[in-house]
Amino acid sequence: MQKIKAKTLPGFMELTPAKQIVFDEMKDKIISVFKLNGLSPMDTPILEYSEVLLAKAGGETEKQIYRFKKGDTDMCMRFDLTVPFAKYVAINHNELVFPFRRYQVGKSFRGERAQKGRFREFYQFDMDIISDENLSLNADAECIDIFSQVFEALNQRIIIKINNRKIINGLIEFYNLSEKSDEIMLLLDKKSKISETKFLEELNNLTPKANEILKILNISEPEKLLELNIDNKLFVQGSNEMRELLEILQLRELKNQFVFDQSIIRGLAYYTGTVFEGSLIDLEEKISVGGGGRYDNLAENFTDKNFCGVGASVGLSRLFDLLDKNNLLQFSKTTSSLLAIIPLNIELEHCFKLSKMLIKSGVSNEVLYFDKPFKNKLNYANKKRIPFITVIGEDEINSNLYSLKNMETGEIIKTDCRGLIELLGGKVE
Amino acid sequence: MQKIKAKTLPGFMELTPAKQIVFDEMKDKIISVFKLNGLSPMDTPILEYSEVLLAKAGGETEKQIYRFKKGDTDMCMRFDLTVPFAKYVAINHNELVFPFRRYQVGKSFRGERAQKGRFREFYQFDMDIISDENLSLNADAECIDIFSQVFEALNQRIIIKINNRKIINGLIEFYNLSEKSDEIMLLLDKKSKISETKFLEELNNLTPKANEILKILNISEPEKLLELNIDNKLFVQGSNEMRELLEILQLRELKNQFVFDQSIIRGLAYYTGTVFEGSLIDLEEKISVGGGGRYDNLAENFTDKNFCGVGASVGLSRLFDLLDKNNLLQFSKTTSSLLAIIPLNIELEHCFKLSKMLIKSGVSNEVLYFDKPFKNKLNYANKKRIPFITVIGEDEINSNLYSLKNMETGEIIKTDCRGLIELLGGKVE
Repeated sequence: MQKIKAKTLPGFMELTPAKQIVFDEMKDKIISVFKLNGLSPMDTPILEYSEVLLAKAGGETEKQIYRFKKGDTDMCMRFDLTVPFAKYVAINHNELVFPFRRYQVGKSFRGERAQKGRFREFYQFDMDIISDENLSLNADAECIDIFSQVFEALNQRIIIKINNRKIINGLIEFYNLSEKSDEIMLLLDKKSKISETKFLEELNNLTPKANEILKILNISEPEKLLELNIDNKLFVQGSNEMRELLEILQLRELKNQFVFDQSIIRGLAYYTGTVFEGSLIDLEEKISVGGGGRYDNLAENFTDKNFCGVGASVGLSRLFDLLDKNNLLQFSKTTSSLLAIIPLNIELEHCFKLSKMLIKSGVSNEVLYFDKPFKNKLNYANKKRIPFITVIGEDEINSNLYSLKNMETGEIIKTDCRGLIELLGGKVE
Repeated sequence: MQKIKAKTLPGFMELTPAKQIVFDEMKDKIISVFKLNGLSPMDTPILEYSEVLLAKAGGETEKQIYRFKKGDTDMCMRFDLTVPFAKYVAINHNELVFPFRRYQVGKSFRGERAQKGRFREFYQFDMDIISDENLSLNADAECIDIFSQVFEALNQRIIIKINNRKIINGLIEFYNLSEKSDEIMLLLDKKSKISETKFLEELNNLTPKANEILKILNISEPEKLLELNIDNKLFVQGSNEMRELLEILQLRELKNQFVFDQSIIRGLAYYTGTVFEGSLIDLEEKISVGGGGRYDNLAENFTDKNFCGVGASVGLSRLFDLLDKNNLLQFSKTTSSLLAIIPLNIELEHCFKLSKMLIKSGVSNEVLYFDKPFKNKLNYANKKRIPFITVIGEDEINSNLYSLKNMETGEIIKTDCRGLIELLGGKVE
């Protein structure tokens, strides 16, 4: 029989079992944060009509998209979780209770050039709070708080940089720079990555007021911005919102640090008010690991109804890869079974009974029933790094007492079934 | 602005929030069974090289597949979780510990004609136990046991019909019917759906020994098959395996009923020994809701190495749809938050503190912080069917005592924070 070479597409993550366990625990911890905060789960198809998915897209996105025809139907694989969300809200708004608070964890697809840390198929999570009326800044604060809780759950310290786009938009209006708006935004976006001299030089190319503007951009307290008495409605509104948001965040007692930073932009399109992003404190490279912000009109391509909201998004495959490569993954589980039950020349019945009792108590375990010598079974448990084993022979069956061996320390404790459950963290009825 | 009609592709499931909560709980319960039984999690890409995915496929499958080119790369969306598993094992076998026990829950894609109960994008779960050496019938028993536990976790009673393909293959050899093998298999596959007269009529068209064979096929105890003294190695081996398997299953004390039934085939290709499928007892229509069996050579298209195994597969989107339409879904959760914390003309600080304390204790909740009249907030909690509410005003802040209202019974209990946590099933530190 002719063989075909088994291979996976480049840029598509596929993990070995030990790493998959860690990835899944990361995903579970994140979902648990969303659930505890009472967000509604959402799941949308991976395939959508091209006209729906590309309603707003353009440029780079359209080049990267996986698009094809099946019969007469022109369809695409989703490239983010935002457009499908907008579609979902446009279809289902009569069924939703507003403010609608949702999360979604799923794969998105972008056929971009393969490069370090970029995946063509990647997990991401999105969370959003949207309303069909006005939405107070409390929603922005909640979104940032939950974003912070996610990283707390992963034992990662982050710094959250927050800005309000109305401030820079106001400044652009005030200094009559509307024609150069995009260039200024893009320059600001890379401010943290270049020297201040370089930044000033480039800003000078755009406006003679560069020095004056830079001074304003370096201010990190909204109160100080207001004291400038700049006569622009947007600028004042943005500064006030920023001040109020920081106050609410103080009340919420976030476990992660947050600061006001006017260099945070989060791209040209989409956001209209609050914007924020997080970076890992324990990573030397200060790159964004996710963020989000406030938008005015989620579903404008699909409906006349207005839905404003605030959301956050994190690329999980990339985050996992980053944490893994920098040895920052801190997790409890490294194996699928907590306990291996090893039969010693006996009928398996007793092993199955014990296994089921432990399963019922929430203790993961497996019976090593395969027809192999005892030392092969020990070897299996060792290779799989199963943390505990117990050997079942005639003595154990007769006495109902078990020897629980901790494979790391070598310690052995003799106990009954109830003791076994307790020692392994199960729930005794 | 011109609007685009928001619509989802036909045959692609997209649920409203309340249904999504139930679907997710179903999925979580299933995954929990796999975890407790110590199976390794697996996740493979949704996109694969076409040559890899279509290595074994043909006929109907190839017509249904979503296949396209991006640049020079010919790729497909996976149509099951078996071929990607075979690829994974061929690539990673040096990293795996055998027997390798895995589960995977994910979406597969088949662009088939839309029809009742069929989805083009659907969740399925697969579980497999494979070995690079011989694998005892204990693996088949474990697979059937875990399959049974899955439905137990969903509060569904099933009947599991089990067969061994060696029995019919042996009979076909014995009666010299090899040329009509496929036709006999397909006829057997529909035996439970047609009358015995009809079955006999069609079998008569294939062989003059139809009466004799039917008598054998109606036997439901492997011991009785062995007593026939049919001189065929495969037949005897299959009957013996069937007997042994039933004995092991007895030891395992399954909560669901299982029977030996020679009409179970599970398609023409693939399976070589044990085959089984489950159907819901509380559903009038006796259709299969999943099953699996034993295969000899998982990765033969990719490698000379031999991996035999046994697996099970269930279509979750279809199962959910079936249970939902027949009012058989029995779940505890219908809302994302267990508790709504409603502030009454106060600073929100106290609400946030209480909310975080509850989150830490594992109680899902949300603070209704939006700027709306009290009755709108009550309305929100009602519409979302949040089961408990507590209103926070000056009194609560001063006394640290809360009134917990059960929204279904109307009952109100006055308690402190610790009591709140206990009443809502949280973990008191």
